[in-house]
Parts: sequence; structure tokens; C-alpha cells
Amino acid sequence: MTVIGYGALSAHQKLQAVSFDREPLRDGEVEIDIEFCGVCHSDIHQCADDWENSVWPCVPGHEIVGTVIKIGAGVRKFAIGDTVGVGCMVNSCQVCAACKAGDEQYCTGPKSATFTYNGPKLPDGSNSYGGFSDSITVREEFVLAIPAAISPAQAAPILCAGVTTYSPMKHFGLKPGQSLGVAGIGGLGHMAVQIGKALGAAVTAFTTTADKIDAVAALGADRVIVMDDAADVAAAAQTLDIMIDTIPYPHDLADYLGFMKPGSTLVVVGNMMEFAAFNPGPLVFNRIAVAGSLIGGIAETQAVLNLCAEHGIRPEIEMIEMADINHAFDRIKAGDVRFRHVIDMASLKAEKAAIAKGCEHLPAPTRGEPVNRKTA
Amino acid sequence: MTVIGYGALSAHQKLQAVSFDREPLRDGEVEIDIEFCGVCHSDIHQCADDWENSVWPCVPGHEIVGTVIKIGAGVRKFAIGDTVGVGCMVNSCQVCAACKAGDEQYCTGPKSATFTYNGPKLPDGSNSYGGFSDSITVREEFVLAIPAAISPAQAAPILCAGVTTYSPMKHFGLKPGQSLGVAGIGGLGHMAVQIGKALGAAVTAFTTTADKIDAVAALGADRVIVMDDAADVAAAAQTLDIMIDTIPYPHDLADYLGFMKPGSTLVVVGNMMEFAAFNPGPLVFNRIAVAGSLIGGIAETQAVLNLCAEHGIRPEIEMIEMADINHAFDRIKAGDVRFRHVIDMASLKAEKAAIAKGCEHLPAPTRGEPVNRKTA
Repeated sequence: MTVIGYGALSAHQKLQAVSFDREPLRDGEVEIDIEFCGVCHSDIHQCADDWENSVWPCVPGHEIVGTVIKIGAGVRKFAIGDTVGVGCMVNSCQVCAACKAGDEQYCTGPKSATFTYNGPKLPDGSNSYGGFSDSITVREEFVLAIPAAISPAQAAPILCAGVTTYSPMKHFGLKPGQSLGVAGIGGLGHMAVQIGKALGAAVTAFTTTADKIDAVAALGADRVIVMDDAADVAAAAQTLDIMIDTIPYPHDLADYLGFMKPGSTLVVVGNMMEFAAFNPGPLVFNRIAVAGSLIGGIAETQAVLNLCAEHGIRPEIEMIEMADINHAFDRIKAGDVRFRHVIDMASLKAEKAAIAKGCEHLPAPTRGEPVNRKTA
Repeated sequence: MTVIGYGALSAHQKLQAVSFDREPLRDGEVEIDIEFCGVCHSDIHQCADDWENSVWPCVPGHEIVGTVIKIGAGVRKFAIGDTVGVGCMVNSCQVCAACKAGDEQYCTGPKSATFTYNGPKLPDGSNSYGGFSDSITVREEFVLAIPAAISPAQAAPILCAGVTTYSPMKHFGLKPGQSLGVAGIGGLGHMAVQIGKALGAAVTAFTTTADKIDAVAALGADRVIVMDDAADVAAAAQTLDIMIDTIPYPHDLADYLGFMKPGSTLVVVGNMMEFAAFNPGPLVFNRIAVAGSLIGGIAETQAVLNLCAEHGIRPEIEMIEMADINHAFDRIKAGDVRFRHVIDMASLKAEKAAIAKGCEHLPAPTRGEPVNRKTA
């Protein structure tokens, strides 16, 4: 099936219209007509090869919402016409300890998890293409049900920004009444503030941007700390049980460790580039942990979708057209979005005939066999 | 009471004979005639002001074993003649959440914990002097019972090197059958290997010193990895559930993160100076935590003493005389000790008359009031 989309052919190139053939629908898979796709800072990192693991060409997009238009034999959870989502993964081995525990993102199977784009976690020469496209085909275990209470466009950012902040709150044991910090109030951070409140935490938001204070407070943050306000910073010393650090670029851990209580955990979810040299004294003196966390498992993704439906949590989105993606990347890098861009794929489909005729046709992606199906 | 000992008057000076007056015995305290004191890498760091928190003059020593020679009113746990130990702390508030949980080292009371030397964790102008001396007086809650099965000299290193490695194994949940790594096989590391085995773990020791392999294997390590052996290093990739990193100077976390399984914890107990800039990608991709841990609580210190007695765990010690301390510091810095120096305080006492007559007399130390006694 020929699909159109937007992708980058190599590092630091602008995204351009492309076409490619997805493998035909197989048993256990569903084909999804994509209606919306969120724009994540990861998409920018991958297209810039900031993590030095990009596979070219790269068709980003892992906050996908659309409608099931075909189902393969044996599909049990979904029917044609369902509104569904696809997040950051499309496959995993399903049998390793991590998969059995619902942590498919840490799959230790032979190909590890297969991400929605940029291929398997452990590169094996294959590639996958994501949601900056008009259609995707995914084994049903990696497809999420979108609750009716959430509009499809607003559901999209929950699939990465939502679960990436929700998963470490659950894993590292955030309890009602505890003090949660959120560093970096962008796409991930603005979800973390809302999800933390829904989980019963007192939420402190940390921003470097004083003009965001009102917008962040409106999300429900109990306290907003501007990082260059010395009095604010001093008042927040050693007050946090858990910090979700969403800042997506290199920064200094020392700026944030002082906010952590003894025995607390600072979780890095955004920066996969570099931390500056740092003094581990605060970790030792206060038994603080600095942990990382990667997206979340499939069951967790469904759980956070349901939590958002139940608690009225909604990402604040700005809708864009597919052809404006390069401009959107520039705006995100400049911090100029409150708080998440979502692409309306009607804008892509409207150009389908023209794009299919004149664009670069990419090598076909793969997505791994839908083997090892759970038989529960 | 006038006490003699060895101390440093300022950073980078050699230790010299000193005398000082300890505050008289009070209710709830015991006076201990010091027989042995271990030499810890911390003593070197403090005398060099490597952690930028040294209080001068500095009389080090926090692996103290001796005999109770006086008891204050109300002492319940100890009697004159008992063989006892004092580790890294001599006081804490006893009422904060950390103290109540047995984590006195993380005390959040007004002075925080008071360390055996170098005063309170939160500097308040007072100072304490440690076990490089012939006598110390300590409230009984901070005095440990030395099991009869362990010789007094061999018990000394358990009070810091033992508990500093035991505490994070317990806190971070090392289970029998799990895979424990120990990085840096010196005073702390050689205890960690033995304690890990006693707790039922498979132990991998990491050393930069190929000529230590046999000695480390003799401690019971299941596997010894020499860090410049590429095949060794590759074979150990992602095999550890917990790593105790005892290396007491700046090093590169990236060299060790590759050994950690998904979901594992690397615990820093030795380096309170600096980690080089590092890429947190491995933390994020595998939900690895880098945590710190500081010594251990009093109940944990008693527990590790008892564990060592029960399992025949003994530090390998080299006895020195007090007057050789500066040479011992040089040898420890050069890695030339297997594995812990212990000072025989008979060598200090033999010179008492001469020292008391001619040495520098220091300002009196304090040790905090023995307030907030537990009444259980």
C-alpha cells in the first residue's frame, strides 16, 4: 500500500514530502487512517541525529490518532471504525521478562522493542516509518483505544508526552500527598503537571521562562519556580519526593539536585545528550537517585489515556498543517509553542495526488513480524 | 579529660601529634579507651579538603574499637569492660523521620547528624574529633557492640567500610541470586565483595589493577573484570542488578553504566568529588538509576557487624603505628594496601607523656548534647 508523508533523508535536512510502500496487512494487525499526529521534541532530535542513532530516511511521528480501516485475521480488540492511537512502539518480543511485566519499551528480545519510527532499539538494518504519514499498519497489541471523552486531536500528545511522564510517576512510586517537581514546562512538562495533580501530588513546576508563570499555574501547578529567581530557588530547597526532568537538551544536574529531599528520585526523561560534569556529593549525602525513564509500556499508555479521560486532563494543542512542519520544528526549538503542536492530517491527504506524483519514493520500511502473540 | 591524638591543622598539612580536652562524661554517655582505629580514604579526603567541607583542626578516624572505661548515669546498653565500636556518627536529633527510620546519617534535625570528626553535617561552627586519639566519649545510642567472634582490630573497618557497602545493598533491595557488581576493590570494595556473597548475590568485582585478580578472587568474587580488558568488559555488559561503586575519586560513569541491566541501580559511595560529563542515554533507555548512599544507620551498623561475625567475614588488615599515619596516607593514595590499614593505639599511648608535653594543644571539640534519648 502506498503511503505519503513527510520525512528527512539525512541529518539536518528539512523534512520533505515522501511516499513509500508499507507491508501489506497481516494476521493480527490493524490498518489505521491517520487523522492527527503530535509533534514531539524527539522528532527534532531524531531528524538532527542528536542521539546518534538515527536511521535514514527518517519519517517521524509517534503520537498517532486515527480510525481503523482494515483488520487482519484474528484481531480481537478492535473493529473497523474504532478511534485508536499508536504511540512510540509498534512491536516487541512479547516473551521476555520486560514484555511480560508490561514494560515493552525495555524489551530484551532479539530486536528489542521496535519503535514506531527509527526502527528497532538495537539497530539491525531495518527501519520503521512513523505517523507523519496518512496511514499506518500495526499489530493490535500496540494499538490503544482512545476514550470517547477525549477528542482525537487532544488524545495524540498523551501517547508520548503523557505516558512518558506518567510511567516514572507510577514506577518510582509517587504517592498522594507527596511533592512532585516538573522541570521544563513544554509538551511533556505541561502534561506532567496535570497528571501529577490527578495522582494527588503537590506539584512544583520549574521553568526558565518567567513569562510562562500564569500559563503554568493555570495547568494546576501549586507552585511555579523561575530558575533565575534566587528566592524562589532557595524556598524550594529539599522539598521534592520525585522530580520529572523533561528538559530535552543538555543541562546541569546541579541546578536541580538541591530541590530533592533525602531519599528522593530525580527522573530524566528528556535529555539523552549530555549532563555536564557534576559533583555527586548531594546524591551521597542525601541518598538521592538520578534515574532515567523511557516512554511507558502499552498497558501504562492505556492507563494514562483513561486517567486523562476521567480527570479532564487535556494537552493544550496548536493545530498545524503537515506542510508547516519545518516551521513548527523551528518554533519548538525556540520554545515558541504552548504546549504541543498537532498535525491535522487532512492537510496532507488534500495534497495526496500531487505528492504521490512528484515526491521522493523511499525504500519500504519494515515493522517486524507479529510473532509471539499473547494468547490470553 | 586531656586526650592525645594525631590531627591536621589545615589542608594539605601532614598530620602531627596533638592534644585536646574532651568534654566530661555526661548522662547517657560512655567513655571508651581506644585500642584500634581503621584508616579510611575519607580521612585522606577530609585532610586534603577534597570535599570542601573540612573544619580545622581535623582529627580523623571513624573506625574505632576499644573498651568501655566509664559509663554515665542512665546508660543501659553497655558496662565497663565491654568491647565496643564507634563508627562515622556520634549524635543525631533522634526525632526526625530519618532518625526514627534508623537512618540517622540522613538526620534532618537542626544540626543534622554529627559525624565522629569534622563536626555536624550542616556546619554550625562546632567541631568533633575522631578516633586517631586514645579516648573518645559518645552517647550510648551511637556505640556498637563488637561480637566476640571478631577480633577488635578486624572489627574496626566494618564500622565504615562494612556498613557503607552493606547499607545500599539492603536499601536498594539486593536479593539472593541477584548479580552484584563492586567497582574499586580497596577498603570498601573488599568488604562489599564478602558482604555481597553473604547476602547470596553473585558478585562481579571490577578493578583497574590486573595484579589484584588473585587477591580479589580469594575474597570470594565469582568474577573479576579488569577494566582495560575489552573482552572481560564486553562479557559483563548488562549483567548487574546492583553496582556498589566505591571508587573514591573522580571517574567516568560511562565506563560502568554499560554493565547495568535494565531497571538496575548503580550506587555511588566513594566519589564525592566529580563525575565527568556523561550521556544519560543509557539511564533513559534502560531505566537505570544512579544513586548515592552515605555510610549507614546505627542499627544497620550493628546488623553488619553481626553478619560478619556469623559468616566469617573479615577485613584484611595491615596494622600500623600511629606515628606512621602520614606514610600510610601516601600508600593508600598509591593503592598500596591490601586492603585496610588499622592503627594499633598502643603505639600512641606508649608516647603519651612525651606527646602531651610537647605537642600542639587544640581547641576543645564538641559533640552535641545527648538530648532526645529514645525511651523504648
